Amino acid sequence: MYDNEKQFRTVCEELLAPTGVQINGRNPWDIQVHHPRFFRRVLAQGSLGLGESYMDGDWDCQSIDQLVNRLLKAKLDKKVYPKLKLWWSIFMYRIYNFQSKARAFQVGERHYDLGNHFYQKMLDSRMIYSCAYWKTATTLEQAQIDKLDLICRKLQLKPGMKLLDIGCGWGGLMKFASENYGVSCVGLTVSKEQALWAQDLTRHLPIDIQLIDYRNFNPQEKFERVVSVGMFEHVGHKNYPVFFQAARRSIQEDGLFLLHTIGRNCSTGPPTDPWIIKYIFPNGEIPGVGDIALTSEGNFVMEDLHNFGAYYDLTLMHWHDNFENHWHEFSRQFDQRFYRMWKYYLLTCAGAFRARDLELWQIVLSPSGVDGGYHRVS
Amino acid sequence: MYDNEKQFRTVCEELLAPTGVQINGRNPWDIQVHHPRFFRRVLAQGSLGLGESYMDGDWDCQSIDQLVNRLLKAKLDKKVYPKLKLWWSIFMYRIYNFQSKARAFQVGERHYDLGNHFYQKMLDSRMIYSCAYWKTATTLEQAQIDKLDLICRKLQLKPGMKLLDIGCGWGGLMKFASENYGVSCVGLTVSKEQALWAQDLTRHLPIDIQLIDYRNFNPQEKFERVVSVGMFEHVGHKNYPVFFQAARRSIQEDGLFLLHTIGRNCSTGPPTDPWIIKYIFPNGEIPGVGDIALTSEGNFVMEDLHNFGAYYDLTLMHWHDNFENHWHEFSRQFDQRFYRMWKYYLLTCAGAFRARDLELWQIVLSPSGVDGGYHRVS
Repeated sequence: MYDNEKQFRTVCEELLAPTGVQINGRNPWDIQVHHPRFFRRVLAQGSLGLGESYMDGDWDCQSIDQLVNRLLKAKLDKKVYPKLKLWWSIFMYRIYNFQSKARAFQVGERHYDLGNHFYQKMLDSRMIYSCAYWKTATTLEQAQIDKLDLICRKLQLKPGMKLLDIGCGWGGLMKFASENYGVSCVGLTVSKEQALWAQDLTRHLPIDIQLIDYRNFNPQEKFERVVSVGMFEHVGHKNYPVFFQAARRSIQEDGLFLLHTIGRNCSTGPPTDPWIIKYIFPNGEIPGVGDIALTSEGNFVMEDLHNFGAYYDLTLMHWHDNFENHWHEFSRQFDQRFYRMWKYYLLTCAGAFRARDLELWQIVLSPSGVDGGYHRVS
Repeated sequence: MYDNEKQFRTVCEELLAPTGVQINGRNPWDIQVHHPRFFRRVLAQGSLGLGESYMDGDWDCQSIDQLVNRLLKAKLDKKVYPKLKLWWSIFMYRIYNFQSKARAFQVGERHYDLGNHFYQKMLDSRMIYSCAYWKTATTLEQAQIDKLDLICRKLQLKPGMKLLDIGCGWGGLMKFASENYGVSCVGLTVSKEQALWAQDLTRHLPIDIQLIDYRNFNPQEKFERVVSVGMFEHVGHKNYPVFFQAARRSIQEDGLFLLHTIGRNCSTGPPTDPWIIKYIFPNGEIPGVGDIALTSEGNFVMEDLHNFGAYYDLTLMHWHDNFENHWHEFSRQFDQRFYRMWKYYLLTCAGAFRARDLELWQIVLSPSGVDGGYHRVS
């Protein structure tokens, strides 16, 4: 180990001291370092360096979710920058966004090219790729059903109503709503693969899937209900006003709009984690509640906001279990670096939700306020 | 009637046409005009002219709440300005704020000089001067108890906890929380009269009333719980960050803060109704949800937002009934113009909440997110 690597290690250990995380310690949240360049990479590149050096096998940890929970609870992510005066990570993130669109696109394609089969194994049987509702459920299958039902109840769906789903994924919510609440649906998606899947899934139901960007959707006949689940994270703050305008022009005056989105605790400051942006969700941007409130008001009245971010911890841990249990089916298709990347993604996000560094907001909005008031449910 | 007064009347009737309100019509929401200057005053001064000409007896209406509900539902307040190019009302409001501090102060003093006896007759027995909770209640008395209990349940109060009440009014919430949930309290108020009343009311309980501005309150020992009911409307947007900082420095890391405030549907644009500012709440400023979200984030995580503005309609109608039923006790103390002013205040606000032009938000905030998630109640 070179002298400066020892220095880097010392700095890392000092930073970690208040978190209870040790280098090569015995607790499940301790970091087992395999290569000394780990310290330099983390100090120079923050969370990006932490993730990339994990993918490269520089370190391991028995429980990454517990590790990340401890780092974020101690607000280490906020302390590293001022202390070491390293704006590297933010700086690199900014450069990255401008320079490597092509690469980000490749990553994006790779993410989707994982294929439906991969997600079938990781998710529940309905392939719901968003936070489940664990108020009473004990299995992922039930927790996702409870989430879908919660959305339908919050939207006060009744037979014959028309529901618009902006960013409908594999169509699971529309299928559930149509089968259980007797509504007809229009689903918007920009993914060909998801559109084909959803069309096949819902061909026996009054459900229309459209391959269209929400910005270009302008229906002649308005919808009684609009829903958007786990799609707002891809909108980007410059498009928030356009997003809410699109929802507003699609909804009836006495309608309801449910927005389900991951949130962060501050609308300002550097956005979403740079490692996540680079490897998992290119162009992803987590909104703050200030962003949402400011850009939705004028078009909508906020009737209800429900934060159940802590349930995303449980959801992600179940996805991780499924991923681990089925990995042997995919180990020929994907390499070890992918395995470590995906595992790191699921567990760091679980830890971030556990630390309450990320939120999950379900927000019910109405165009002009519900007559007599909106009666919320949980 | 002069020629131009006929013209003014014609413009008014055209504006009113889509609202179903008629001049000298037979419906309870119709306007009975006693003096033709009414039309000019309304067109020139918008809501200020409407209110002042009512106080002066230029017009009457059997049901002012229904009238205002119709005007706001039709968004007449937004249509009058662009159509007639009258920014008068906004303009006057701005000038007013700068020029007539002394007058506003007089009005303020007059408002409080009404005395405790007056509010005892108008409010419930606990003298709770904020929106009641009518989910199941059928009387004002029960609806206020249910509101107090809802706050205690949302705050998850437990015996031995310390509760800070920022803007404690006559102390009714602290008394209820202490008697029913076994907590000790500190209440802050800037009103001597309210402080004396609250001290007398709670002298047998572990409750400390302090006559202090929230900005100067900086306790050494932090509180498990903080609450502020119906006080944020007096804070002013320039002080919102200071308000949330004051709450943050007073609360424990694992604490809960419940904010109960009236809201408006847009954070930008002309603030609170100029008539209300001039006659009822000098220096009042109704926040938008964007204001609240942007200035609280960073200090707090939004766990829950509950909109029950429609219940303020019922609350105000009950206050109005009480006011009418007890007016004979006050008719020597106050003149007829005061009677009309107060009646107009209660009924226009009821109509505004009914039209969903105003909101009531109860927001639960936590400093860093509740471990394992916040479980909301209704």
